[in-house]
Amino acid sequence: MALLVQKYGGTSVGSIERIKAVADKIIGYRKQGHDLVVVVSAMSGETNRLTALAREIDPEIRGRELDVLLTTGEQVTIALLATALKMQGQDAISYTGGQVRILTDDAHNKARIKSIDAENIRQDLAVGRVVVVAGFQGVDEKGNITTLGRGGSDTTGVALAAALKADECQIFTDVDGVYTTDPRVVAEARRLDKITFEEMLEMASLGSKVLQIRAVEFAGKYEVPLRVLSSFEEGEGTLITSDMNEGDDVEQAVISGIAFNRDEAQLTINGVPDTPGVAFQILGPISDANIEVDMILQNIGADGTTDFTFTVHRNDYDTALKILQNTASELGAREASGNNKIVKISIVGVGMRSHAGIASKMFEILAREGINMIMISTSEIKISVVVEEKYLELGVRALHDGFDLEGDENE
Amino acid sequence: MALLVQKYGGTSVGSIERIKAVADKIIGYRKQGHDLVVVVSAMSGETNRLTALAREIDPEIRGRELDVLLTTGEQVTIALLATALKMQGQDAISYTGGQVRILTDDAHNKARIKSIDAENIRQDLAVGRVVVVAGFQGVDEKGNITTLGRGGSDTTGVALAAALKADECQIFTDVDGVYTTDPRVVAEARRLDKITFEEMLEMASLGSKVLQIRAVEFAGKYEVPLRVLSSFEEGEGTLITSDMNEGDDVEQAVISGIAFNRDEAQLTINGVPDTPGVAFQILGPISDANIEVDMILQNIGADGTTDFTFTVHRNDYDTALKILQNTASELGAREASGNNKIVKISIVGVGMRSHAGIASKMFEILAREGINMIMISTSEIKISVVVEEKYLELGVRALHDGFDLEGDENE
Repeated sequence: MALLVQKYGGTSVGSIERIKAVADKIIGYRKQGHDLVVVVSAMSGETNRLTALAREIDPEIRGRELDVLLTTGEQVTIALLATALKMQGQDAISYTGGQVRILTDDAHNKARIKSIDAENIRQDLAVGRVVVVAGFQGVDEKGNITTLGRGGSDTTGVALAAALKADECQIFTDVDGVYTTDPRVVAEARRLDKITFEEMLEMASLGSKVLQIRAVEFAGKYEVPLRVLSSFEEGEGTLITSDMNEGDDVEQAVISGIAFNRDEAQLTINGVPDTPGVAFQILGPISDANIEVDMILQNIGADGTTDFTFTVHRNDYDTALKILQNTASELGAREASGNNKIVKISIVGVGMRSHAGIASKMFEILAREGINMIMISTSEIKISVVVEEKYLELGVRALHDGFDLEGDENE
Repeated sequence: MALLVQKYGGTSVGSIERIKAVADKIIGYRKQGHDLVVVVSAMSGETNRLTALAREIDPEIRGRELDVLLTTGEQVTIALLATALKMQGQDAISYTGGQVRILTDDAHNKARIKSIDAENIRQDLAVGRVVVVAGFQGVDEKGNITTLGRGGSDTTGVALAAALKADECQIFTDVDGVYTTDPRVVAEARRLDKITFEEMLEMASLGSKVLQIRAVEFAGKYEVPLRVLSSFEEGEGTLITSDMNEGDDVEQAVISGIAFNRDEAQLTINGVPDTPGVAFQILGPISDANIEVDMILQNIGADGTTDFTFTVHRNDYDTALKILQNTASELGAREASGNNKIVKISIVGVGMRSHAGIASKMFEILAREGINMIMISTSEIKISVVVEEKYLELGVRALHDGFDLEGDENE
């Protein structure tokens, strides 16, 4: 007898058959006595179809009218799912973001939720209805339709769970949980039963694309227990929580998982005069070109100069390199160079805080395989290294094995 | 320098190319100095696509969720049209029915408009914006999305024109006006420059499908001048108005047009005991089967019995005949029979009020062609006759010629 907020993504509601299957699943939860608020995305392909239509008119469409257009996608799904539930005798009602009402700021295409009026939903739940809410969308104070940006349906789910003080927010997706690493790279990768919000944030931002970062941040901030499950298979999934109980802690591995990101490229400028403001002089033009910078390293070099290295998305490599070469000549630096055949591998775990020697163990494992590290960067609960692309699989497998992640926790 | 409400139907906005063409047309009107509120339907085919999706879940879907689903169709069009206008440098803003807000009763799928808040629209017009409104939709007092039923976009246009006290409501469609009769039947059929609301109502309800009856009623009630024009061709179209000026009246033909309806079937029950309540006993079971009855005639027969005849849509003929045969045996009537190969032809014109002998002239024209009339029914401004289907074209052409409708008013 819990209050659950469930979110089903575009693939889970991608056809009439799948919508009916989701209705069956929901009714199963109802039969266990749970109250349910269900957040849905647009049917898979629909958002792309609508965007393509709009781009025939304005190839760079954004702003208010794009939100008016795209929000129709989820509106279609809520009507169909509520209908499917009612056809099976389960009373249900659909709400658009504006109807709930999910109040956002007026930043069209990337709005942020300011408040949620949960009163109507509570009344519906009280009379036994399943409440179906359109994800990804809200309304500003003037009544304009807004969207939260791609993947915003996860955020809608978490925000609703927080507003309703739900027992759990369950994100149904096409994977059955969060893994120690990508099973396509390491066959022994293991589904985690639990992971902390902090770890999940590091995993998500490092390329493990199970959940939207904003949704995890939101869940952590409001302490909404978040669970990732499969829409298509049975299973407990992975619970993301701040509440790791004692028993878990004792058994808990020091490292929770290994994330990696293939889309990296590295840029270096050597022999820069080491004066105050030099970092800004280097990164300012990169940022002006709307290029996002990921890792940043600065080392003191010889003779009062410094070496400065950073990574960008691989798609931005060519542009960034040109800008950097320009900057190098302006600053009188020795040279600007780069490498777009690199990847980032990271180990993540809250256990690092209390265990010394994790970094040196990581470096030892990689050295044993003959893998050279180009960059190293650390935070409280993760250590990232940049290596040549060809070492990705070897490195991830060696670390997964070296930190004993395969285990049999779920057997 | 007028305030115009324009409505573009599904065919007029049926593709991106056509939406761009509508934007061009609107900008042309802006350049003439007019203020514009534009009502649009869903792109042609979209409402059917959505309905088909829903019927895969519930073959008889209706009610609240159907409205949530179908209103996405117009929402897509308003976003695309507003974008197309802005791409050409014309400031524009889109509104859903709920955003306007078009307040309706809560009769989902066939709601009626109660009020319109025109304040936002006025402010937008004042700063030079074209306002694009989703037709067919509104919102009830609780914020539920409602629809006005098929063809409701015409009604939205007229209601907005009334609320804004617009100078004219212009309905753009795939025909260039209202004709004296269907040009496919009578090649000499002539576009009318003007027609009265009453005449238009009779023409519309008799099968001339240019405008929705409700929209015409609404326009008549609030005295909104209504104009039917072609989306695809230049021209003045037909103005529907209560204000036929003097000059027009003198020239005005007695008959404005000839309407006909092919989808009729006639049912007769003979020798019914002529007792009070017999009409209800006959039509009650028909109405219980959700069959709409059009013409109703009752004649006194011989020996204290009566003959009762009515017409229904041809699709309902078989069901209606079975019900009537059942009723006949219950009432002890002589026989129940019918004919589903009949059509209705009507002459319409406000001039009938002041001109005697129109009916006999009509009957004379038909008799001259050897056309037998099965039923006759009259009202103040129309005379309808039911004839065998095979006489449809001959009858319409003879009447069109006999009442001198071809003329050269528009040459």
